[in-house]
Amino acid sequence: MILSSRISSDMIKKLSLAEKEQLCSELRSYIIEIVYGNGGHLASSLGAVELCVALHSVFTTPDDKIIFDVGHQSYAHKIITGRYKDFCRLRSEDGISGFPRPDESCHDAFIAGHASTSISAALGIAKAMEIKGDVHHVISVIGDGALTGGEAYEGLNNASKLKRNFIVILNDNEMSISKNSGAVASYLSQMRSSTKYYETKKRVKETLSKSAIGRELSKSVSGTKELVKFAIFQSNIFQNLGYKYLGPIDGHNLSELIDTLNVAKQLDEPCIVHIKTKKGKGYLPAEQNSGEYHGISKRKAIICEEACDTYSEVMGKYLTELADTDERICAVTAAMKYATGLQHFAKAHKPRFFDVGIAEEHAVTFAGGLASQGLIPVFGIYSTFLQRSYDQIIHDLAIEEEHVVFAIDRAGMVGEDGETHQGLFDVSMMSSIPKTVIYSPSNAEELRASLKKALYGCKGIAAVRYPKGEAVKGNSEKADYDLRFYECGNKALIITYGRITENALKAAKKTKADLLQMVKIYPIPEKALSIAEKFDKVMFFEEGIRSGGIAEKFSAALTDRKWKGTFKITAVSDRFVKYADTEKQLSDYGLNTEGIIKAVGETIGQA
Amino acid sequence: MILSSRISSDMIKKLSLAEKEQLCSELRSYIIEIVYGNGGHLASSLGAVELCVALHSVFTTPDDKIIFDVGHQSYAHKIITGRYKDFCRLRSEDGISGFPRPDESCHDAFIAGHASTSISAALGIAKAMEIKGDVHHVISVIGDGALTGGEAYEGLNNASKLKRNFIVILNDNEMSISKNSGAVASYLSQMRSSTKYYETKKRVKETLSKSAIGRELSKSVSGTKELVKFAIFQSNIFQNLGYKYLGPIDGHNLSELIDTLNVAKQLDEPCIVHIKTKKGKGYLPAEQNSGEYHGISKRKAIICEEACDTYSEVMGKYLTELADTDERICAVTAAMKYATGLQHFAKAHKPRFFDVGIAEEHAVTFAGGLASQGLIPVFGIYSTFLQRSYDQIIHDLAIEEEHVVFAIDRAGMVGEDGETHQGLFDVSMMSSIPKTVIYSPSNAEELRASLKKALYGCKGIAAVRYPKGEAVKGNSEKADYDLRFYECGNKALIITYGRITENALKAAKKTKADLLQMVKIYPIPEKALSIAEKFDKVMFFEEGIRSGGIAEKFSAALTDRKWKGTFKITAVSDRFVKYADTEKQLSDYGLNTEGIIKAVGETIGQA
Repeated sequence: MILSSRISSDMIKKLSLAEKEQLCSELRSYIIEIVYGNGGHLASSLGAVELCVALHSVFTTPDDKIIFDVGHQSYAHKIITGRYKDFCRLRSEDGISGFPRPDESCHDAFIAGHASTSISAALGIAKAMEIKGDVHHVISVIGDGALTGGEAYEGLNNASKLKRNFIVILNDNEMSISKNSGAVASYLSQMRSSTKYYETKKRVKETLSKSAIGRELSKSVSGTKELVKFAIFQSNIFQNLGYKYLGPIDGHNLSELIDTLNVAKQLDEPCIVHIKTKKGKGYLPAEQNSGEYHGISKRKAIICEEACDTYSEVMGKYLTELADTDERICAVTAAMKYATGLQHFAKAHKPRFFDVGIAEEHAVTFAGGLASQGLIPVFGIYSTFLQRSYDQIIHDLAIEEEHVVFAIDRAGMVGEDGETHQGLFDVSMMSSIPKTVIYSPSNAEELRASLKKALYGCKGIAAVRYPKGEAVKGNSEKADYDLRFYECGNKALIITYGRITENALKAAKKTKADLLQMVKIYPIPEKALSIAEKFDKVMFFEEGIRSGGIAEKFSAALTDRKWKGTFKITAVSDRFVKYADTEKQLSDYGLNTEGIIKAVGETIGQA
Repeated sequence: MILSSRISSDMIKKLSLAEKEQLCSELRSYIIEIVYGNGGHLASSLGAVELCVALHSVFTTPDDKIIFDVGHQSYAHKIITGRYKDFCRLRSEDGISGFPRPDESCHDAFIAGHASTSISAALGIAKAMEIKGDVHHVISVIGDGALTGGEAYEGLNNASKLKRNFIVILNDNEMSISKNSGAVASYLSQMRSSTKYYETKKRVKETLSKSAIGRELSKSVSGTKELVKFAIFQSNIFQNLGYKYLGPIDGHNLSELIDTLNVAKQLDEPCIVHIKTKKGKGYLPAEQNSGEYHGISKRKAIICEEACDTYSEVMGKYLTELADTDERICAVTAAMKYATGLQHFAKAHKPRFFDVGIAEEHAVTFAGGLASQGLIPVFGIYSTFLQRSYDQIIHDLAIEEEHVVFAIDRAGMVGEDGETHQGLFDVSMMSSIPKTVIYSPSNAEELRASLKKALYGCKGIAAVRYPKGEAVKGNSEKADYDLRFYECGNKALIITYGRITENALKAAKKTKADLLQMVKIYPIPEKALSIAEKFDKVMFFEEGIRSGGIAEKFSAALTDRKWKGTFKITAVSDRFVKYADTEKQLSDYGLNTEGIIKAVGETIGQA
């Protein structure tokens, strides 16, 4: 065994090629073992094992900075850089993150989790090093999927003028989470398929210089050497953007990788190293279905009695059904077809289904364009990624009141996905935008009813938000209420919405407080306020950021009505929610049943 | 005179070329006349006169859809499409917008104001038309400046696969507001300078096919025709992305423009028409200094006694001064060097000044990269454009607590810039992000003190926000207080911050209410709450969106402290602020002196 807790960048540099290859194999086994236990991103991490070993063969962190885009391909890097032992606590509470985190290790140069940021961060780091006279290397590792995001292009555009070593490794596995679409994907595919292209260029050059007609051609072309070069040799999009281009090379051929990185290391200008890798490499099930093996959930002891749908599935299936009879309904996703349950829609209504790649800004403006022509687009997106579209929602939708529906998935705590992926900001963000309506159902039936109201009961922007995970089945009654009031003893009023309604109801029964569940959470229904103002003691429990949330607004609205009672808010206050399972996270913030019972008991106990 | 209120798209189609040229000249004169009276975007509108006339010579709105990016180049289009008379009320209350607005005219296909959105909107419109079987044309008009924004690239990437007519007009005037930087700008400049390039390509083709060595070359190159084509003819970045490319052509040559648009109209695939224009064309002062003539303010009767600096100038100059002795300070702008007052910094500290183009997402992550290496970046940006960076602020700065300072310009009402540019969301947005500190000074001295506190008194994200326009001079005392309390009669408490403090102080004196001015507005200083809770009646006046603003939080915080008084909020509630001058806007929302007096009087008068 080469892999042990003593593994390090220095040690790797001393290994023979054969030993490095063995190390790759051992890293692969270790990653598979741990991810099967803890959950995590399997396919992309397996695809980047050779790359990580090659990087640490050529560069030395933390002096050299490696910035991983998205970051879920960095497991091998983590293990190599002093986290071999900690890796068994991947994505666990007080364990290590599934993404790079500078506060976890100085070998992680910059935070990641969301896509398309690495080139911008790397450029900032490189410029700072330039200012400080530090000549170490800066390497950004970005997948072809992340390259569909506009920020990656902004980064490329800005980095091209650097006069120092700056390496962008394009880890091209022909897909991100779903299949890539768009021009860049086609272009990369074209590049990949032309394996002889670079030899070809060399041959063109030789042919031209050797033959008379070649020289004549050069002459007739423009009279300048530059123009020939431009027309013939600069045909690569990255070269057009000013980058030296090395590739495409086999990203699982360690020797080729190391040689190429050593060339890249010598350059005094920005360069792109284009490597071809296979997601899930070395683990056949993941190779064959890397989509399914993109992220693996922690194995759960509890198996659903009947086949449980996730909220994503409930949304996706119901939207598909509604679209059967309403040809105006379209679905938009930003590279999350399966994760948002929209694969059903894609299958049934292909012409009205749009996967725009990792491009959340575009997705919203595009939806605005659809809406402006009378269609009803539904954008299925994770709460955390919706943050990318704040300006477009205001500017392209809200002002002209375009009717666009947001199906906000992974709203609230997201368990082991960590700080970067928490769905805690969408309520504050969306409710700041004039005339927006927000629903936060607590079960599958309310979700369906909310989606229908968002589609047909609203004019402009309407959002339906729901958590990650298996959907709670509602009871069979018609679930189209905006509010539900539970009388449990009248000692005080608990208000809440969404997933934690279940916890709140148990707490209400236990403490003999009544419960007001909001399904329509914004604008706050008049009736909710008039119910609340009859109580002396109101406690609002909110699975989201406190600042700008509904609880604050509710309190201010009651005060505005001259209500003089006690109002207590329990929410996520001014911090980021760390790794743990969702139950633990809810418990940490007092949003589980016990937490609610405790808070309510204290308030009721007070004079 | 050809130009009159009867001018229309139909009429233009019947004009001779000479008459069209005369029309262009008349449009130019009319635009200059009105913009000098009302303020507006002169240079870019003058540069696009021929383009607008050519578009209406070839296409027919509203059946064909023209989507202008940013939209400040659309004046001629507005005049042509039924708004000749209304144009004299450009940017006036109840007049017409300086940007395209579908609710103003059906000839404006989509809203604009912010940059880089037009291709995405156009694609949405095109897809909707495809679904509905509508074969009319969709044309996006985008400047080279807006092309530096990531969303434009996301749009280009997604639109390339269309199987219908889709025209992107690249209006290339070699600059947006400040000089463009980055790879795309260089690339366009390279394309512009190679005037013989297209003739050249043709000649290469002929030469190859005619000569034996050419045919041999083709053969030796790859054995396939495709690869030769790829290597030799597809050397243009837009062609690489899958677009048919027409250009570059002279955007002031009406005949060439019309011919080219007629070709573009025939294509069944996406194409780029690359036109070269001159900002300010036809008006010498604007041609010679298009930066200065980008936006012209309404002439004001009141001339400043002494030379008044704007808040932007105050910020820019002071930051430059601080950077003289602190080498960690960097300045970042997104194509707003002059508008944010950072030209002073750029001049004095060039290596630490970064203009990243219209790329607000990149700007924030880039600043995070700088900060991660111990530098202190200050991002000077308009409040409205900061909306583009919400996710990056959360993801790339807040989680790891990178110390980045935001100098948020144009915060609050922005007068004639209209709905798309109001600075009303920054407080709600920034205060939702954990551990962010926000200052909102009311005069130049407080601005300087706030900037210093943001730089040296804060750890993570710190924001200083200030309005558009001339800076109020403070009195000469040291202005580093977080709060200021004015005792004026003790009848109630007015709380406010920022520009309207002046109005509130006058109102306080008049109504004998006391005034609490907040300079540090978030987190709400403990002392502010303890001052307020001594009053029975508190009125909060906020020049910003109510939902998620400081007033709501203040009310909820007082309630949380068991305070039982009356709390009234005056803010911008659930709507967008329309065109008018700033004074009128403040008056409309009850935030001018009279409005505050009235509201305070009513509350004091109540039992």
